[in-house]
Amino acid sequence: MALLLKGGKVVTHEMTYTADVLCEDGKITRIAQDLSAPEGAEVIDVTGKLIMPGGIDPHTHMQLPFMGTVAADDFASGTAAALAGGTTTIIDFVIPSPGQPLMEAYHQWRDWSEKSMSNYTFHVAITWWDDSVHQDMETLATEYGINSFKHFMAYKNAIMATDDILVSSFTRCMELGAIATVHAENGELVYHLQQQLMEKGITGPEAHPLSRPPMVEGEAAYRAISISETIGAPLYLVHCSVQESIDAIRYAQSRGHHVYGEVLAGHLTVDDSVYQDANWERAAAHVMSPPFREKKHQDALWKALQAGTLQTTATDHCAFCNEQKAMGKDNFTQIPNGTAGVEERLAVLWEKGVNSGKLTANEFVAVTSTNAAKIFNLYPAKGAIAEGSDADIVVWDPKGKKTISASTHMSKIENNIFEGMEVTGVPTLTICNGVVAWKEGELLAKEGDGQYVMRPTYAPFYESLQRRKALAEPKPVNRKS
Amino acid sequence: MALLLKGGKVVTHEMTYTADVLCEDGKITRIAQDLSAPEGAEVIDVTGKLIMPGGIDPHTHMQLPFMGTVAADDFASGTAAALAGGTTTIIDFVIPSPGQPLMEAYHQWRDWSEKSMSNYTFHVAITWWDDSVHQDMETLATEYGINSFKHFMAYKNAIMATDDILVSSFTRCMELGAIATVHAENGELVYHLQQQLMEKGITGPEAHPLSRPPMVEGEAAYRAISISETIGAPLYLVHCSVQESIDAIRYAQSRGHHVYGEVLAGHLTVDDSVYQDANWERAAAHVMSPPFREKKHQDALWKALQAGTLQTTATDHCAFCNEQKAMGKDNFTQIPNGTAGVEERLAVLWEKGVNSGKLTANEFVAVTSTNAAKIFNLYPAKGAIAEGSDADIVVWDPKGKKTISASTHMSKIENNIFEGMEVTGVPTLTICNGVVAWKEGELLAKEGDGQYVMRPTYAPFYESLQRRKALAEPKPVNRKS
Amino acid sequence: MALLLKGGKVVTHEMTYTADVLCEDGKITRIAQDLSAPEGAEVIDVTGKLIMPGGIDPHTHMQLPFMGTVAADDFASGTAAALAGGTTTIIDFVIPSPGQPLMEAYHQWRDWSEKSMSNYTFHVAITWWDDSVHQDMETLATEYGINSFKHFMAYKNAIMATDDILVSSFTRCMELGAIATVHAENGELVYHLQQQLMEKGITGPEAHPLSRPPMVEGEAAYRAISISETIGAPLYLVHCSVQESIDAIRYAQSRGHHVYGEVLAGHLTVDDSVYQDANWERAAAHVMSPPFREKKHQDALWKALQAGTLQTTATDHCAFCNEQKAMGKDNFTQIPNGTAGVEERLAVLWEKGVNSGKLTANEFVAVTSTNAAKIFNLYPAKGAIAEGSDADIVVWDPKGKKTISASTHMSKIENNIFEGMEVTGVPTLTICNGVVAWKEGELLAKEGDGQYVMRPTYAPFYESLQRRKALAEPKPVNRKS
Amino acid sequence: MALLLKGGKVVTHEMTYTADVLCEDGKITRIAQDLSAPEGAEVIDVTGKLIMPGGIDPHTHMQLPFMGTVAADDFASGTAAALAGGTTTIIDFVIPSPGQPLMEAYHQWRDWSEKSMSNYTFHVAITWWDDSVHQDMETLATEYGINSFKHFMAYKNAIMATDDILVSSFTRCMELGAIATVHAENGELVYHLQQQLMEKGITGPEAHPLSRPPMVEGEAAYRAISISETIGAPLYLVHCSVQESIDAIRYAQSRGHHVYGEVLAGHLTVDDSVYQDANWERAAAHVMSPPFREKKHQDALWKALQAGTLQTTATDHCAFCNEQKAMGKDNFTQIPNGTAGVEERLAVLWEKGVNSGKLTANEFVAVTSTNAAKIFNLYPAKGAIAEGSDADIVVWDPKGKKTISASTHMSKIENNIFEGMEVTGVPTLTICNGVVAWKEGELLAKEGDGQYVMRPTYAPFYESLQRRKALAEPKPVNRKS
Repeated sequence: MALLLKGGKVVTHEMTYTADVLCEDGKITRIAQDLSAPEGAEVIDVTGKLIMPGGIDPHTHMQLPFMGTVAADDFASGTAAALAGGTTTIIDFVIPSPGQPLMEAYHQWRDWSEKSMSNYTFHVAITWWDDSVHQDMETLATEYGINSFKHFMAYKNAIMATDDILVSSFTRCMELGAIATVHAENGELVYHLQQQLMEKGITGPEAHPLSRPPMVEGEAAYRAISISETIGAPLYLVHCSVQESIDAIRYAQSRGHHVYGEVLAGHLTVDDSVYQDANWERAAAHVMSPPFREKKHQDALWKALQAGTLQTTATDHCAFCNEQKAMGKDNFTQIPNGTAGVEERLAVLWEKGVNSGKLTANEFVAVTSTNAAKIFNLYPAKGAIAEGSDADIVVWDPKGKKTISASTHMSKIENNIFEGMEVTGVPTLTICNGVVAWKEGELLAKEGDGQYVMRPTYAPFYESLQRRKALAEPKPVNRKS
Repeated sequence: MALLLKGGKVVTHEMTYTADVLCEDGKITRIAQDLSAPEGAEVIDVTGKLIMPGGIDPHTHMQLPFMGTVAADDFASGTAAALAGGTTTIIDFVIPSPGQPLMEAYHQWRDWSEKSMSNYTFHVAITWWDDSVHQDMETLATEYGINSFKHFMAYKNAIMATDDILVSSFTRCMELGAIATVHAENGELVYHLQQQLMEKGITGPEAHPLSRPPMVEGEAAYRAISISETIGAPLYLVHCSVQESIDAIRYAQSRGHHVYGEVLAGHLTVDDSVYQDANWERAAAHVMSPPFREKKHQDALWKALQAGTLQTTATDHCAFCNEQKAMGKDNFTQIPNGTAGVEERLAVLWEKGVNSGKLTANEFVAVTSTNAAKIFNLYPAKGAIAEGSDADIVVWDPKGKKTISASTHMSKIENNIFEGMEVTGVPTLTICNGVVAWKEGELLAKEGDGQYVMRPTYAPFYESLQRRKALAEPKPVNRKS
Repeated sequence: MALLLKGGKVVTHEMTYTADVLCEDGKITRIAQDLSAPEGAEVIDVTGKLIMPGGIDPHTHMQLPFMGTVAADDFASGTAAALAGGTTTIIDFVIPSPGQPLMEAYHQWRDWSEKSMSNYTFHVAITWWDDSVHQDMETLATEYGINSFKHFMAYKNAIMATDDILVSSFTRCMELGAIATVHAENGELVYHLQQQLMEKGITGPEAHPLSRPPMVEGEAAYRAISISETIGAPLYLVHCSVQESIDAIRYAQSRGHHVYGEVLAGHLTVDDSVYQDANWERAAAHVMSPPFREKKHQDALWKALQAGTLQTTATDHCAFCNEQKAMGKDNFTQIPNGTAGVEERLAVLWEKGVNSGKLTANEFVAVTSTNAAKIFNLYPAKGAIAEGSDADIVVWDPKGKKTISASTHMSKIENNIFEGMEVTGVPTLTICNGVVAWKEGELLAKEGDGQYVMRPTYAPFYESLQRRKALAEPKPVNRKS
Repeated sequence: MALLLKGGKVVTHEMTYTADVLCEDGKITRIAQDLSAPEGAEVIDVTGKLIMPGGIDPHTHMQLPFMGTVAADDFASGTAAALAGGTTTIIDFVIPSPGQPLMEAYHQWRDWSEKSMSNYTFHVAITWWDDSVHQDMETLATEYGINSFKHFMAYKNAIMATDDILVSSFTRCMELGAIATVHAENGELVYHLQQQLMEKGITGPEAHPLSRPPMVEGEAAYRAISISETIGAPLYLVHCSVQESIDAIRYAQSRGHHVYGEVLAGHLTVDDSVYQDANWERAAAHVMSPPFREKKHQDALWKALQAGTLQTTATDHCAFCNEQKAMGKDNFTQIPNGTAGVEERLAVLWEKGVNSGKLTANEFVAVTSTNAAKIFNLYPAKGAIAEGSDADIVVWDPKGKKTISASTHMSKIENNIFEGMEVTGVPTLTICNGVVAWKEGELLAKEGDGQYVMRPTYAPFYESLQRRKALAEPKPVNRKS
């Protein structure tokens, strides 16, 4: 099946140029000016539009069992939202319960995700440790295309990974050519502050950010970085939300350490005043971890994205309905943590990033797609508009306008953290695996159209890491006495 | 009993001026030019000499039971060495075994320390946690003059304090007006690296620094700082030895957090080449934690001392004989950790600090005495040459010369980490509690002459900390729905 | 003449304690509890009050000829305002016109300042260079008690000192044991931006901050620091107003360089929204350089004061009436630069610093008095409550309340940048040279009561600077060929 | 004319993969596995070799008239050396004398460079300012393909650009879509230190680094950055050699400013001990500005290159024979400044960068070629192995060995700053414009084979800069009164 995009402008993470793009059998096969359509090819006129790599959201949680309930968007509605927003691949998470065999959890998630409409792949969380975990990590890496393992430094008494686990798992990642990722928040401090706030009678959503002040995140970021640097393993920090995390990452990068950072569209644009909302539902709708922050952190996050200190943008899409949020009506620690966003990410980034002069269109592509593809070793199959690459494409209308609203979004939940934001610059067409999956408001993809994506280990950055490791091998001193 | 120092120059942490100093009944009672001696007073001519506050070593471990043996210098020989070096007060450590009641340990140490020749006082270590610890901290603070509690972040499976203990204890310190101190090294990483090195057959002292690379310390420093800052409690970091710790401290100070840092005379002047010594005994003699470091860290430590980022100098005097060190002949993790230095600290600081133009004489006094007195709330009784202050004085000959050597030092051990260092600037007279305790090589003090020093809680810096705490008290949002 | 303050609490930069204070013949002669009054002594009950060193304002411009007019507060009204606010010494500026002999300018200013009611002394500005300037600096330093020389890096085509002048003058300061001070703004950039804004038709006070953005100051701060560090000379940066300056200072301090920083009460508390005032007079009343800044800089300045990165607070008191300000009605570059504040500084610092938990009372004394005394080598004659010190004292009522207003201030101008600020903590008594100069609203001092203060060269910090210089002396390589 | 490289591995700045590469008519026309050769094509077996973009050296000075002599390598010998080292394009400098019309100088250099064997292009230096300069910059930018203008902040009384020139020229660059580049050293300080050293009788090459200490460079870097940031213009710093410059760049990047940094192969690998050489000729051979530095700076430079804080590597190839260097026999300030290196750069970078695990092969390509192409807007014509790109290629043998020596290098001078360095990883074939220009030691290119390269203005990063500028346009406040 062939598809020819005519008259558009190709925008990659490096270049912008005018060309037609031909997709055949799920791949981009030809990029050139004035291409003529092969027989039977669908031709779409994209004059005035931009042809960019489909978004990669490296951080979503579809139908996650969490805090006594299950995230409202499942792999069908969640990936439909992704496609509607121009995102063609999500990286979701397999999260074994402590003690649960990794392979069992993995297969469970594969089962749930069969109905995905966009492409998908998984990080696997390390929530406990024994020899079987050590072994299963290898199985996942070598047989199932898993090259990243996630560690939660928060959620004490649940899925928190303590330092001994981090040390073991990061070491294992290094052996396998995988990359460790962390949710950086000091779980002990969060636990302590939660108890303290409840004791003081601060039980509403306003207590949520107070229980997770910036240093709680900064500390964990610094710790994860230090452990990985000591071991010599690469690291990826999910949802960095504060200046302190950025400072920690920059400090490490300036030392030559391979550490990557992700920022959520939400943390870039929503501030912590939402927790003061007099309406409990609206306040609770914003409860996620890390929480939204004081405005000054947004500025720092944008600067970090511009400087390349942070490389990727994501959403941590983990949607809960009002009814679910209400589980924590009298105790903020029981409010299911999570917000949506997988549909809005690209438009929000374009509006607040490109239109404001913070990012070029090329940088927009880098932070919404290419960089994630590189770090998770999908490039240039994904994250590229290039001959031979997968035909995962978003066609973008830089002049198109839209007002974001829960009333029109694809997610199943009643709230939208970007509610009311007017954006100029919207997707008009999403092509996934060479097929039009979404077009001007119409979802064309069906359940199961999405493909599971294998991600090989040993991303290019491993070349120097391995050499360093070898050269640093210690030697005993030769002593007579 | 009266003692008149005539003809000298008074050097305080702020000023230098010519004056005579009269001591009566253990106090400095008069400072002025051309004082005449009261009847019966001993008059000592100190022309050309400097009259400075006696040194305070805020970090020693006399006769410490540790790693299966007991530190060789007991409270007699150790404090004799202190006096010989111009130090009149040591702050040692009560270290309960995990599970041991704090009060029991405290009384044990008080018993051992009865024979001290110099003044002494104790930090008490928090090595475990339950309600009794919580209670005993108050008893110690209010009845026994303990205003500082120590936490070891290293020594897994022994005295290591995990994050939950740090959180509880720092919170308790804040409630009591005490100050938390930490030995900052990530115990999990040390443990991991030790195992790894042993498995690789690197069993000698050269493995010691490899098992504790700079980031192992930097991480723990950053973590302790973050936890204390989150809680709002002041913090004191013992034996900072690397650039990374300094960076963490400076970062915190620049945020308005009250964090203080100590550096050892050894870390300022000895580098990690000692672990490559072909002679096992000499290499092992330098095994202490944190280890000696690459030269570049020395430069950073001096700069931090000059800038006021670090405030105090100490020794971590914890002396082990060759025979004791030999316990780790085949396994570096079994070498008792510790070196001496309480006698040499002042001379080393003068030679490498003042003579090199890094410090003024006033700054020398600040970092060897006054700053420790202020942080641990002994000022101006200690750390000052002022009317009303304790007559703890070192008379300094800035032109006196000496070569440091184990063959002449007071410590019981056979090695000296400063062996062979030639210094210009030496003590000639040490006065403790108004009495000449050491004079030109002759020890005049006797066992038991030293006094136990009570240290009140709520040092001056608590004034603003408490106000901040009160102003930061959280309030619930008033919600209708 | 004797004066006994009874029942108060002495607050120094280090300590707080209860004692009576006796002043005789302009000096503090006795500090002790329960002092009895000498015959004829005036006894003042200061129960519940704090006895602190009189404020030192290291940056004022009384009756300065500037921008075509003369500052409205002369040495009489200006020093009256100082006394009313608890400040007993000002350091004003002798500013020779380019080409004017330094000695001529100096004597002119001495003449003008005869009528001062508080104590006073001068920085002398270096606005041009030739051999006579080189010579006069020595005369001023050795015969007239001038130990600081000021350099304006802004004001192109007027008093701007270019790099060659900075290099020559800083070198000369080092030779004389004096300290260089700088107004750090890049004059070329300011000039360029002023032209550009005028061309664009932005002619009102709102253009003022746009012509002097933060980096204009940060650059000059960094440059002055670099030049002084290269030469090995100490440096004092006046009126630091932005994060960038603080970063530059901290960077230098962390390298062991002696650089000091001053902040104005105004920059700590007033933000740049004042330039948007719809009322031209009110907006213009705030035109001073550097301008008021975005709020985030205030936070940075406070943190820097807390951390000791900045050491002193001042006002740059340089008052202009509305009529004078109106000279720039159609051209913001013609608005005379300056605001008042010498009367309000202490109360503002107490309210926003001490009451908010940012500073302890001891730190308040340090930053309003003692630190300036130390840097400009007046300590302990000034900046101290100590036996032998000058009897320059402010008695402070920490519970007293007041609302700051132009309608009640002593300055001659119609505006007050702190208008409407309610403060808790006010002076009740100002003693200057042992005499009550101001009491509860009543000015008792008369013109000429103030004394000229000689400041000796070679402040204590010069001890290490000179040694470093000597040790760094370069040596030629011995070459055969 | 066609050329087919068979059996090699393509290495770009992003990817490594096996493919054959076909070059036709100076372009790369096809990249694929198992390509068959077009008729008449030359086929070269490059099995086991790497096919990388030809090096771009963005900083050379061939036959530069400088300091009373002319650089020994002219555009023929210099570009021959480039080709022998795998570099296919140099960016040299047109340097008008103060007062000389830019166009005149430009045509002079074009004339001299006709004989180039490799491709070449020019930065044009702004050494003075008037309306003609302002006009000629536009002519050069729009008609002659010049998109970068150079500014020397050193060389007082010669070509130094003072701040007013920087302000004018950077503003002009911004208007034209060009990029300003600077040689960052504070010329006033250099001048002052040179005089001082000569007066002290330190006249040999050892005085050279003393006259240009690190802060002399750091200051100028910070200043250039500040000026460009204030104006909103992009900036490129040539030959960064010290930690201080890196810190300044990183600080600016973290603020979102577009500043790029270059490092020389020499500064990465040679330290300042060379100036202590007892042999005057060898010491003088290393006199260049900035000078070689203490070893610690090398570590900082490598880290900065790894972190992306610096983007490009160059040589500042400006070769002088011993006889020329001897002009400064009695006065180090007269030694012609410059060293060679254009031939050795790639091999040195591979040996010290890739072999040591500091850089991956992809990163090597980025820093030796691609990044320079992007910054100076030559990408993807240059700096890429891609269909459609120019056929400027180096074929690399990662196992080839060589010892660098003046006895075998192509430069005309008698010294080599890398003398004796053994490298593993060497070029075996250099293809320039689709033609084999150098092969295994044999130079095949002829004078005039090199092409002049036009560089368009408005590199991609200008997209966001222009938008920011537009959004930041100031507006007057509307005032009634």
